Amino acid sequence: MSTAETSASTGIVLHWLEQSRSHRILWLLEELQLPYTLKTYKRDPKTYRAEKSLKEVHPLGKSPVITDDGKVIAESIVIIDYLIHKYGGTSPLVPKTTDLEDEVKYYLAFAESTLQPNLLVLFVSNKIRQSPVPFFIRPVVTRVSDYINGSFLPDVRTQLDYLESKLKTNGTDYFVGDGLTGADIILIFPLKLAKSRAALTKDQYPLLWKWIEQMEGRDAYVRASKKVAELMV
Amino acid sequence: MSTAETSASTGIVLHWLEQSRSHRILWLLEELQLPYTLKTYKRDPKTYRAEKSLKEVHPLGKSPVITDDGKVIAESIVIIDYLIHKYGGTSPLVPKTTDLEDEVKYYLAFAESTLQPNLLVLFVSNKIRQSPVPFFIRPVVTRVSDYINGSFLPDVRTQLDYLESKLKTNGTDYFVGDGLTGADIILIFPLKLAKSRAALTKDQYPLLWKWIEQMEGRDAYVRASKKVAELMV
Repeated sequence: MSTAETSASTGIVLHWLEQSRSHRILWLLEELQLPYTLKTYKRDPKTYRAEKSLKEVHPLGKSPVITDDGKVIAESIVIIDYLIHKYGGTSPLVPKTTDLEDEVKYYLAFAESTLQPNLLVLFVSNKIRQSPVPFFIRPVVTRVSDYINGSFLPDVRTQLDYLESKLKTNGTDYFVGDGLTGADIILIFPLKLAKSRAALTKDQYPLLWKWIEQMEGRDAYVRASKKVAELMV
Repeated sequence: MSTAETSASTGIVLHWLEQSRSHRILWLLEELQLPYTLKTYKRDPKTYRAEKSLKEVHPLGKSPVITDDGKVIAESIVIIDYLIHKYGGTSPLVPKTTDLEDEVKYYLAFAESTLQPNLLVLFVSNKIRQSPVPFFIRPVVTRVSDYINGSFLPDVRTQLDYLESKLKTNGTDYFVGDGLTGADIILIFPLKLAKSRAALTKDQYPLLWKWIEQMEGRDAYVRASKKVAELMV
């Protein structure tokens, strides 16, 4: 675990785990320009499990999790909602109407309940395909992976088509309204995952591709990534 | 698709899909004693996909989805929150304090973002294990399934331990406060799934086991299951 204190640790502490859904919370903290303490955790390269010390923060040992003056808050959906509503103030991240608020709520739920689980299955399928097995077993392992992909890739494509069409209809380079909201914050992780799994290509999803580039290019996102890079050496 | 109209279809319509997360929404409608129209959909026995007509309701073709006077509302988290807050009135399902409300929000997110995705992976692993393959391939397929279970079962156990301890601490036979809330509604699906996958046994999780029996025994739950049984013959 590495720590960078940007303020007293009595305020907000983000427990950040590499290759996890927590990076978007770091990004959100930077977008909101809040003072916070960052604690980073690594995964075991073999088992892919998080450092056990995360269980001292929350019994599930998962990330993201934040503490705010000692109060433990877990689950991306809850954390994003909490930070924006408690600390958003006059930030453009706070939806201006209940209709926009409802749209954000939908994307928060969709990203975590629908898109992310399917991508997790594809991630497992990919792990199986890449596992080191003897050559005479390889065809069977590949067939199992193909079978999983055959079941889940069509759904992921439908979901990406849906998001692409949403960006097109909204026409603002953001998913909700005319600026950054919790919808963009939650979607960065599954959409980057979809990009790395090759389901999301520039040709098939030009607007999603452009959206990822724009989000990654935001000052707050660049600051977030730099902070972690400094701590993880 | 089969339809049972309990009121004019201009009100709430629930699009219910067999073996899906939608059954809990039917249960919630019965708990809230709301008038609604039920439309049932089947899965293709081979591909396990939902009937295509679900895509006419929502482009993702997923269930649960409800319409309320034509307005389409998708995602379990959103639907549960919507129904309880719009139609809960003086129902005990409406949390009485913001602390209780926050607890419910946590379980809504936890069930869909953490527990359910892991169970989905175990479900896929089980499908692989049961797939009809020649005997000489069977050991490899079993090994792949074992490998997946080895990665995901420990997390599911940690999560079930956590829920068991929560029931113990709360001491009311419900997850939040002293009566049924959205937390129980959302958790019935993943916990029944965990039970059918044998991760959740009576010996290891006596309180969760008892909780499932109590929820399944509620009048509203029994009514919900009967309604579907009548339509699905």
